[in-house]
Amino acid sequence: MTTLSRHQQQLVNNSIKLIQSAFERHPAHNIAISFSGAEDVILIDLMSQLEQRCEVFSLDTGRLHPQTYRFIETVRNHYDLPIKIVMPDSNDVAELVQQKGLFSFRNDGHEECCAVRKINPLRSKLAQLDAWITGQRIDQSVTRTELAEVHMDGVFDGRNGDLEKFNPLANWRSADVWDYIHARQVPYNPLHEQGFISIGCEPCTRAVAPHEHERAGRWWWESATHKECGLHRQNLIAHG
Amino acid sequence: MTTLSRHQQQLVNNSIKLIQSAFERHPAHNIAISFSGAEDVILIDLMSQLEQRCEVFSLDTGRLHPQTYRFIETVRNHYDLPIKIVMPDSNDVAELVQQKGLFSFRNDGHEECCAVRKINPLRSKLAQLDAWITGQRIDQSVTRTELAEVHMDGVFDGRNGDLEKFNPLANWRSADVWDYIHARQVPYNPLHEQGFISIGCEPCTRAVAPHEHERAGRWWWESATHKECGLHRQNLIAHG
Amino acid sequence: MTTLSRHQQQLVNNSIKLIQSAFERHPAHNIAISFSGAEDVILIDLMSQLEQRCEVFSLDTGRLHPQTYRFIETVRNHYDLPIKIVMPDSNDVAELVQQKGLFSFRNDGHEECCAVRKINPLRSKLAQLDAWITGQRIDQSVTRTELAEVHMDGVFDGRNGDLEKFNPLANWRSADVWDYIHARQVPYNPLHEQGFISIGCEPCTRAVAPHEHERAGRWWWESATHKECGLHRQNLIAHG
Amino acid sequence: MTTLSRHQQQLVNNSIKLIQSAFERHPAHNIAISFSGAEDVILIDLMSQLEQRCEVFSLDTGRLHPQTYRFIETVRNHYDLPIKIVMPDSNDVAELVQQKGLFSFRNDGHEECCAVRKINPLRSKLAQLDAWITGQRIDQSVTRTELAEVHMDGVFDGRNGDLEKFNPLANWRSADVWDYIHARQVPYNPLHEQGFISIGCEPCTRAVAPHEHERAGRWWWESATHKECGLHRQNLIAHG
Repeated sequence: MTTLSRHQQQLVNNSIKLIQSAFERHPAHNIAISFSGAEDVILIDLMSQLEQRCEVFSLDTGRLHPQTYRFIETVRNHYDLPIKIVMPDSNDVAELVQQKGLFSFRNDGHEECCAVRKINPLRSKLAQLDAWITGQRIDQSVTRTELAEVHMDGVFDGRNGDLEKFNPLANWRSADVWDYIHARQVPYNPLHEQGFISIGCEPCTRAVAPHEHERAGRWWWESATHKECGLHRQNLIAHG
Repeated sequence: MTTLSRHQQQLVNNSIKLIQSAFERHPAHNIAISFSGAEDVILIDLMSQLEQRCEVFSLDTGRLHPQTYRFIETVRNHYDLPIKIVMPDSNDVAELVQQKGLFSFRNDGHEECCAVRKINPLRSKLAQLDAWITGQRIDQSVTRTELAEVHMDGVFDGRNGDLEKFNPLANWRSADVWDYIHARQVPYNPLHEQGFISIGCEPCTRAVAPHEHERAGRWWWESATHKECGLHRQNLIAHG
Repeated sequence: MTTLSRHQQQLVNNSIKLIQSAFERHPAHNIAISFSGAEDVILIDLMSQLEQRCEVFSLDTGRLHPQTYRFIETVRNHYDLPIKIVMPDSNDVAELVQQKGLFSFRNDGHEECCAVRKINPLRSKLAQLDAWITGQRIDQSVTRTELAEVHMDGVFDGRNGDLEKFNPLANWRSADVWDYIHARQVPYNPLHEQGFISIGCEPCTRAVAPHEHERAGRWWWESATHKECGLHRQNLIAHG
Repeated sequence: MTTLSRHQQQLVNNSIKLIQSAFERHPAHNIAISFSGAEDVILIDLMSQLEQRCEVFSLDTGRLHPQTYRFIETVRNHYDLPIKIVMPDSNDVAELVQQKGLFSFRNDGHEECCAVRKINPLRSKLAQLDAWITGQRIDQSVTRTELAEVHMDGVFDGRNGDLEKFNPLANWRSADVWDYIHARQVPYNPLHEQGFISIGCEPCTRAVAPHEHERAGRWWWESATHKECGLHRQNLIAHG
């Protein structure tokens, strides 16, 4: 049985307090957790230790791994939580696919497909909120070397303009995430036992060798410094 | 190298003539081939031997196998054919999933999910056509014991009411299909080399043991006599 | 639930009688069933309906599929039967491998490796017997068009010279085998649900597409008329 | 392209010198590298940078992963090196399996099977040598907290009694191993891209989740402090 170190226990407490502070600053029905189907399941587990709950939504791009769909269902049942599925506009997808086929990202880069399948539906979703809670971490990417736990979203707008972004896991390292998962027996995506660390769309995610950086498994045909899907593009801008 | 028997060559010739007759009876832009991502790829190969072409569309339910998406792309490139992707209404899917989760079909039967993800978008698509061409075969199912090569669709309406349905493979047996695929080196879905015969949505299709009927791999938790997804429901009605 | 046709029930009865006749002609401890880890598990199921039992042995070439090792264990437990594992001489294997590596069969043909890993240990095993019982069927191969249910082995010698060979499944077609497996709920190798029909050594067996002949999945880099591993070489000789 | 840090380059230089020193202390034909089919492929890559070569042997327990057999062949070809395959005594294996089946280790612990399939053939092999070179590292196990780069083997005897053991990777951390593999483009076992870190026999190795200790993937049904297969039992004794 894994037990958490004193430092890790502190990370957990801080993260729970951060989620708590989101509830204090905004009505619960104007906040949502963005759940990708990967280790950010921790956000849901942290919230489950509070009395209040906000909506959890997942972007279903239409190209997730079968295992991810099953995992989202597992999480839904485990936490008794009706996860909101946010989908792209079917006309936009159909138009892209009609013109460029189902794998345009291999030739043209992932931005166009991500825009249609992830960013636009996310933008519509966020436009109904005051704040969102994400699983971003500093150690996930070379583009995420600075990441505040709370800040105004520099890319997306909320219901009334400003959108606050909470990143409760910003200062967790990957090892902390996994120690927490084992210590609290949090359900996790079975792809993590097949060499996957980061998990996104099926055609755009692959398993990595031991000690490869998790971002090596995403959009591997592109260069390391452009690997943001746009959800957290501010990282790139801040970096520019 | 597989060669076709005289009987099989006759099947091929008849099927090509049947597709030809569709072109004679309707403007090409009011006809479409419905391509499921499985062995009905033969329809495309048969049409490629004619001078005329009509649109080929595939229903992307959002839950196809990763291999099927890749195969559709392979076919698109192999035949230089911009396959039209028909998608369900994202609000309808979101509503079903919000209420019942991503695997409602396991408890409630597949009809509700098929209606949202397959039948409704198909209905909208067919409402723009005079005729459609499908890969249905008599030997595919206990519910398909009678199946004319051409008939009025008893379930869906076309652009002006009547919708004609062409089934060029109605009288092919599964072995004929595979002999043709090998003889003409038609590309096929790699799932067929992992024990899959029939191929539909990922959560609702499974590999079968040797000599199991192909329909044993579809909606296996339901009884054998209800295994139509609704695309070809007339078969059930005729059977009732 | 599958039920057997009258014809199939007759096949079963004949096969059981054939095994019974082996017991009548030879002491049980001088007979053995050769079990390959595939559908010839039926031989064991048939014998389990008799009062007498003989030894069952499997050739462990050292290169079987992990699934096959697990299946042999499953059969051992299911029928409460200590399956004898017959292994090649380790010096012979080491010598072949030292000279030609672990995949010599890709370049030199499968005969040399089969000789070391299958035929020689089988020859030693059979030299202790009066008779053996195999799962050979006429429909398995183009080289097996004539196959008596009982005959003197033309390749291997027994304890006292002559070795009798019983082929209780000679006249079963593949579909009969699978109907029997389903009707009697006989355990089967899970590879059969991944597109495998014939199962041998891992590097020398592959899944086949629907309606491909099962022998298409064995030594596929060699020509169709040489696909006997040598266990049943008499078929080739008779054919020559 | 991965580049090695100054510290890592020093590790490499030290390890090459250590292998060089083995050649200075013993005739090359009395030394051998023990290659497990996993990341200890680095030993071979290091030796390839020297003028001298000694034999490389692998223990083929008869239960390795298909991928491992293919990887050993890849290494054989990549370094043009006739890897010696050391196999267990087939009578010993047959006896164990006859009595206890093919998965006795699940019930009785792995020691008995390891003794027959790994330790005994290794002992015979080492009895022909003066020294052996292994890929052991301190960070691999809780039982390997102290590990000299060179020491007298406390478990096995050599040709003339004493057997010297060289552990050139003793002070490498797992991350160093993988940086080296990427920097030098050393071929590696494809299982490492499916979540496997440590690789042993197929039934006794499994993939691990991110940040799980590599030994969590070995004999996982037993307790953490007994996870030595016996090749390096001295670690346990020193620990006792």
